[in-house]
Amino acid sequence: MDAETDFGFAVIDDGRAARTGSAEVVFGEGKTPEQLVVLLRHLEAREGRALATRISPEKARRVQEELPACRYDEVSRLLWLGEAPSVSADAPVDVAVVCAGTSDLPVAEEAAQCCAWLGLRLVRVHDVGVAGLHRLMRRIDEIRRARVVIVVAGMEGALPSVIAGLVPAPVVGVPTSVGYGAHLAGLTPLLAMVNACATGIAVVNVDNGFGAAQFAARVIRGSR
Amino acid sequence: MDAETDFGFAVIDDGRAARTGSAEVVFGEGKTPEQLVVLLRHLEAREGRALATRISPEKARRVQEELPACRYDEVSRLLWLGEAPSVSADAPVDVAVVCAGTSDLPVAEEAAQCCAWLGLRLVRVHDVGVAGLHRLMRRIDEIRRARVVIVVAGMEGALPSVIAGLVPAPVVGVPTSVGYGAHLAGLTPLLAMVNACATGIAVVNVDNGFGAAQFAARVIRGSR
Amino acid sequence: MDAETDFGFAVIDDGRAARTGSAEVVFGEGKTPEQLVVLLRHLEAREGRALATRISPEKARRVQEELPACRYDEVSRLLWLGEAPSVSADAPVDVAVVCAGTSDLPVAEEAAQCCAWLGLRLVRVHDVGVAGLHRLMRRIDEIRRARVVIVVAGMEGALPSVIAGLVPAPVVGVPTSVGYGAHLAGLTPLLAMVNACATGIAVVNVDNGFGAAQFAARVIRGSR
Amino acid sequence: MDAETDFGFAVIDDGRAARTGSAEVVFGEGKTPEQLVVLLRHLEAREGRALATRISPEKARRVQEELPACRYDEVSRLLWLGEAPSVSADAPVDVAVVCAGTSDLPVAEEAAQCCAWLGLRLVRVHDVGVAGLHRLMRRIDEIRRARVVIVVAGMEGALPSVIAGLVPAPVVGVPTSVGYGAHLAGLTPLLAMVNACATGIAVVNVDNGFGAAQFAARVIRGSR
Amino acid sequence: MDAETDFGFAVIDDGRAARTGSAEVVFGEGKTPEQLVVLLRHLEAREGRALATRISPEKARRVQEELPACRYDEVSRLLWLGEAPSVSADAPVDVAVVCAGTSDLPVAEEAAQCCAWLGLRLVRVHDVGVAGLHRLMRRIDEIRRARVVIVVAGMEGALPSVIAGLVPAPVVGVPTSVGYGAHLAGLTPLLAMVNACATGIAVVNVDNGFGAAQFAARVIRGSR
Amino acid sequence: MDAETDFGFAVIDDGRAARTGSAEVVFGEGKTPEQLVVLLRHLEAREGRALATRISPEKARRVQEELPACRYDEVSRLLWLGEAPSVSADAPVDVAVVCAGTSDLPVAEEAAQCCAWLGLRLVRVHDVGVAGLHRLMRRIDEIRRARVVIVVAGMEGALPSVIAGLVPAPVVGVPTSVGYGAHLAGLTPLLAMVNACATGIAVVNVDNGFGAAQFAARVIRGSR
Amino acid sequence: MDAETDFGFAVIDDGRAARTGSAEVVFGEGKTPEQLVVLLRHLEAREGRALATRISPEKARRVQEELPACRYDEVSRLLWLGEAPSVSADAPVDVAVVCAGTSDLPVAEEAAQCCAWLGLRLVRVHDVGVAGLHRLMRRIDEIRRARVVIVVAGMEGALPSVIAGLVPAPVVGVPTSVGYGAHLAGLTPLLAMVNACATGIAVVNVDNGFGAAQFAARVIRGSR
Amino acid sequence: MDAETDFGFAVIDDGRAARTGSAEVVFGEGKTPEQLVVLLRHLEAREGRALATRISPEKARRVQEELPACRYDEVSRLLWLGEAPSVSADAPVDVAVVCAGTSDLPVAEEAAQCCAWLGLRLVRVHDVGVAGLHRLMRRIDEIRRARVVIVVAGMEGALPSVIAGLVPAPVVGVPTSVGYGAHLAGLTPLLAMVNACATGIAVVNVDNGFGAAQFAARVIRGSR
Repeated sequence: MDAETDFGFAVIDDGRAARTGSAEVVFGEGKTPEQLVVLLRHLEAREGRALATRISPEKARRVQEELPACRYDEVSRLLWLGEAPSVSADAPVDVAVVCAGTSDLPVAEEAAQCCAWLGLRLVRVHDVGVAGLHRLMRRIDEIRRARVVIVVAGMEGALPSVIAGLVPAPVVGVPTSVGYGAHLAGLTPLLAMVNACATGIAVVNVDNGFGAAQFAARVIRGSR
Repeated sequence: MDAETDFGFAVIDDGRAARTGSAEVVFGEGKTPEQLVVLLRHLEAREGRALATRISPEKARRVQEELPACRYDEVSRLLWLGEAPSVSADAPVDVAVVCAGTSDLPVAEEAAQCCAWLGLRLVRVHDVGVAGLHRLMRRIDEIRRARVVIVVAGMEGALPSVIAGLVPAPVVGVPTSVGYGAHLAGLTPLLAMVNACATGIAVVNVDNGFGAAQFAARVIRGSR
Repeated sequence: MDAETDFGFAVIDDGRAARTGSAEVVFGEGKTPEQLVVLLRHLEAREGRALATRISPEKARRVQEELPACRYDEVSRLLWLGEAPSVSADAPVDVAVVCAGTSDLPVAEEAAQCCAWLGLRLVRVHDVGVAGLHRLMRRIDEIRRARVVIVVAGMEGALPSVIAGLVPAPVVGVPTSVGYGAHLAGLTPLLAMVNACATGIAVVNVDNGFGAAQFAARVIRGSR
Repeated sequence: MDAETDFGFAVIDDGRAARTGSAEVVFGEGKTPEQLVVLLRHLEAREGRALATRISPEKARRVQEELPACRYDEVSRLLWLGEAPSVSADAPVDVAVVCAGTSDLPVAEEAAQCCAWLGLRLVRVHDVGVAGLHRLMRRIDEIRRARVVIVVAGMEGALPSVIAGLVPAPVVGVPTSVGYGAHLAGLTPLLAMVNACATGIAVVNVDNGFGAAQFAARVIRGSR
Repeated sequence: MDAETDFGFAVIDDGRAARTGSAEVVFGEGKTPEQLVVLLRHLEAREGRALATRISPEKARRVQEELPACRYDEVSRLLWLGEAPSVSADAPVDVAVVCAGTSDLPVAEEAAQCCAWLGLRLVRVHDVGVAGLHRLMRRIDEIRRARVVIVVAGMEGALPSVIAGLVPAPVVGVPTSVGYGAHLAGLTPLLAMVNACATGIAVVNVDNGFGAAQFAARVIRGSR
Repeated sequence: MDAETDFGFAVIDDGRAARTGSAEVVFGEGKTPEQLVVLLRHLEAREGRALATRISPEKARRVQEELPACRYDEVSRLLWLGEAPSVSADAPVDVAVVCAGTSDLPVAEEAAQCCAWLGLRLVRVHDVGVAGLHRLMRRIDEIRRARVVIVVAGMEGALPSVIAGLVPAPVVGVPTSVGYGAHLAGLTPLLAMVNACATGIAVVNVDNGFGAAQFAARVIRGSR
Repeated sequence: MDAETDFGFAVIDDGRAARTGSAEVVFGEGKTPEQLVVLLRHLEAREGRALATRISPEKARRVQEELPACRYDEVSRLLWLGEAPSVSADAPVDVAVVCAGTSDLPVAEEAAQCCAWLGLRLVRVHDVGVAGLHRLMRRIDEIRRARVVIVVAGMEGALPSVIAGLVPAPVVGVPTSVGYGAHLAGLTPLLAMVNACATGIAVVNVDNGFGAAQFAARVIRGSR
Repeated sequence: MDAETDFGFAVIDDGRAARTGSAEVVFGEGKTPEQLVVLLRHLEAREGRALATRISPEKARRVQEELPACRYDEVSRLLWLGEAPSVSADAPVDVAVVCAGTSDLPVAEEAAQCCAWLGLRLVRVHDVGVAGLHRLMRRIDEIRRARVVIVVAGMEGALPSVIAGLVPAPVVGVPTSVGYGAHLAGLTPLLAMVNACATGIAVVNVDNGFGAAQFAARVIRGSR
């Protein structure tokens, strides 16, 4: 469980999947295209596939020159080699990824696509912010069917409270940096979410769609 | 409009009602019982009645020894001489004072009783926090009839956003210091409310029920 | 009242005008020109006109290539299709939009032009910061005639306090991000405004001229 | 699902268990002994048992004078009527409640006893802070057997990161207000936990042992 | 200039008057009555008189038991031995001490009485907050005659800006901890004052009336 | 004293010199080159000279195309028309402008050149930070001769405390945004300076060399 | 090295001395007198002596009733069983404990007495704040002889910068919570110290005299 | 010991090595290439070699055009003339430079190369973050051999606590600005490190690898 590979600039934790259930994923910020190529190749060789997060379009292009098999999604800024596991269309829904506004979409997509990568069956519910409750109500039954609900919201971060009062599943709040003024780059919805008056909510870092997906995967794996 | 009375420790702005529509109200914190007696007597002599806010029970008791006609309400911590203006039971509702939880009641009552003091007709809607939306929905029609809605909420401060999406009236948000941990003594719901995703909300200071009532009175007076 | 249109990247709340009195306005930040074109067309088709806020000149240019009928104002960064309602020059003034300094003009203009778009009659009072009180005094009678006063100020945010002590109307404070050093990008005037020693003030988010206009429109509509 | 009982000072959400899986629990702070008696009686009559959190010893004593069947635990500050559901000693462990230091015990016990109240089978692991890793390592296998791990830590809040790297279950971090100086009453470990370098962690508010238990119950119920 | 006396718990800087123009003053917080007695006696022996700041009534009483010649003022919380220098009633005014509200009086009196102790001729102007400008205007000519203006204000701290725009003298702003909610114990008016839109303002710490007086004394001594 | 000129985008306070002793100076940030040209011309016509602060090199170049008589200094980022008043080389020193490090020079030069513009006689003392006290000691006699000492410092902002303990003049602290990490863009030295253990210090905003000069001018003018 | 004793409420890390060089010390805050008695007895039995920090006088008295051999120091709030190791009066000085003001003495004494407990030879230098540099200069040669310098300072926290520029030893800064207003309970000097312009400084938590002593002991042990 | 050279824009403290053990190092931020050339030449002439920190690649290139003997390292952003002292490969290890993640490498390399420049013998241990403890454990014996341990970590900053519990040497924590969201540009790990539950840790500013090396050099020099 403690295997590892040392690349000098990074030490890959090859035993992570055995210990925690998930293979390493490459955090792309602050890494050069050259480093990314090395790490993606290593992970693909070991795990059969590889994923990197927070990749700019320019950096993606340069990695793809070396690794033409890499695919890239501009909205979620994910870059990957190989395939997400296929899930049966009949399987019950594991995760609902709900977002409050159009501007929260990149974080919601990071969460959703990482969920898919981790083998979870998911449903997406977009643009159901609390200023128009009927939009949420029209889709609340879909959300209720999920075993985990990831709620992505910027601005005042009120959506997790409302949803947690309506569904029985655990709610993972993801504050986003979408806002301005006293929004404090996402600190405001983060603080709001940890102070939620509803029970059943726990929170990950601002813009951390990837982290919410990982957390959801742990919940789902524990129940299979 | 610029009359005033100088008591050494305070200068009463006797022209305030002429200029802004409201006579002075005594802010009780940091004033001694002796000072309160002097100021309440002066205002009563001039205006026919007088109100002081943020009075502790002990301080109220000591003022009442000097001024037995004073009345005191423990929940709102208001102390007053004289009567609120009577309002016709048939009049349309000016203000709905809505609060999220039981612990927000003292601030909601400060707002409500100050509204009454200022001659506004009001309806109270208590304990309709967003974790149980149906409680709010059962009463939303009452709220919709008001010309101003004062929404008092601690914790994550989400209630103004939800209400502003459901009613046409201006919503005055009053964050409260009810909460703990990352609640920051009310700063969290204050920040949340100014970042509301719904339009039609403006915010007063933490626990400032009195300020919300004064603001509402200006709105209503302008439309009579 | 609960109609809506789902564009995938956004769900337009077509019932908002019926519920809250105002049709949706497009928040431009974080949206692509292509998304803006779709949303503006939809709103124009439904409401006869459409407005978007916080549009950069470059983004405006790209939208205008698709929608040549769009007009754009560089100061307020508003982009729109169709006309603001005409208001009689004899009508009483609904709103005074007051600003403290030249640098606050973009936010003041966002507020003013949104007021016009919402059918309010307005007067503009510019550059009357508290460091030169006589400039304010020369125009205070104009301000006193308005039913709502929107006060836009950066730096220390003192102007709403001074004005609320001089007029009977409700004052909506709009802090701006104009300043430097300990200005904290507008947090300082926001905090100052919610702590105003004058009564009759409520506050919206930093730079939120649009929000102040929406709030004013709710006040005015309630009194017509 | 929308039943409720209105006590004037509070509106009990009788449909909460149907909607979200958990009956209401009384938040004791800011409520009088008289209010607590009324609410506990109502819940006991409806649900067969009742729980209140954050009750001081003095307040507990006064409630017990009215309701002698109430039991109270000084460490967790919980007060209750009725029994937690019995769980088979052979059942697999649902939750491990892990705490970093002796001073974190009150919050850990609030979490642990609420878990028991909610019918979860739990194991307690105390005083395994990261300054003495071998203490943690001696007990890591016990922790690995749990389906959810609640980690309670003050000071720098490092324990969730270490544990999440060693176990496959979701980790719910509970920062505590234990510390001094730049600890900021728990804000420091809260910020540290949301920035954890390990994946699989989500966080609740400072000192919110009750919230962690509720979240864990949603996870476990979803998998039964 | 470098003389000093070492008492073990404190080292008195006997050369301070020679170097900086002012003898040491004892900061009373955190010192025991016994320590205060020793220090006051030493200073009186050396300088002919002695002053201590921030003394609670109880501590003052205990010092006076040992040093019956000590006098104490409850408002400013100053304790002293000996006399302030007499100043001619005909001398021009050195300092105007202006305060915004009744609750700011203790800090204003600390400033005023320390000015007197330092031999400055002063005028007091109380309760002229910006919510009632005419109160300020009635007294502005008195303020204009001073060579330094000390302005004491809590709440939003707007008064220094207004005064600095009306007088030619340097304005020393003293924010106070008077306020609540988002007042942040005086941080809000401190931030507001350093962001003043008027020029000619510099600021001392929250509640530091003593520091403002010392600063004013340096200004005045330099011009005699 | 209340004259003014209204340019639409700005209202020039022509009476400011009469009221406060200093003519208006143009704050350059957020103004266009066209606006600057208009304002500089107006002030030159009225006062015989004109000054603008915080002008980028590019903006300066564009103003100089219209107004070739304008001069510009890259270090202080000042732009001006006309001459500073000449001061006799024999006059006593009014102001010492002291700075802690090389990186504080731009702010120190803004202060120094504005002092000269305001007719003050000054001495510059550079790079005498507290990490090398002997550099300061070698020049302390020069500093002691000044009637006001402006101390410019970033990093931990300790220099004003040390100097105020060594000289009798009032010390105006100017924190700078020079630093990194927990420097908080100048908030750290600002907080340090207002908490100085030495008396005789007052503080202006971060990087506000202009404000320090204006304050110094008020002190000096009052003593002439 | 991994021995430990489990008391239920605490797990004593008996191997800590072997691993890190220092036996455990009991952190007294939040522990009951009964718990303290158990832990002190255990440590004394194992190590021959035992120390607890942050003990209030009342708590000390109750422990001493059970353990009459315990000694207590009111200034440093330390409680202990057994003796500090004796150090030769001829040994070179290991540590200088320097403090800025009288009010910093409790923290300085916690540091000094913990140093003695850990077998370090120390010199105390009190009340040498930067407002009176000559006091520091008179004693700088003593300080220069130490191998580690612990500098305890509240207010603006400037003393470590000055000392680190004058001596070759590493400087451990200990900010204290002594101050008021914008002092932020010690956060201001903490921030100032980590931003020191002098090199050779590292910082521990606010009021953490114990931690500074532990750090110093590690430095000295490494060099013996 | 007090020699210095005044370049107008900077005063080089030529006596620093005599006083504190280290010659001056040029802080590169905010200095022009021209200034850097002058300062590097001066230091090389005096000390035989010269070092500058925080140099961008572009600035390095321009300095190298003037001083072709200059060498530059892109990772650490150091620029230097001359050689680091050679250290025997057999010497015991002075410093271990440990870093938590790949993204912390630039700061770790600044620390490591500055240590080498100061004549310290060092070992590097990279990418041993607490999410994969076995990576750390594999190398803990190497770390234990060092006399000072520099630990560089971003994110939640937990690594110093873990290491300080495992080794006897003093641990110098260096928080980095690596992270996002509630990471607050490094303030979060800074706060976490000063609150470490392990003893034996002191902290330098965010990203201050240079400062950690200087501190380590003082520790090592004191013990030789």
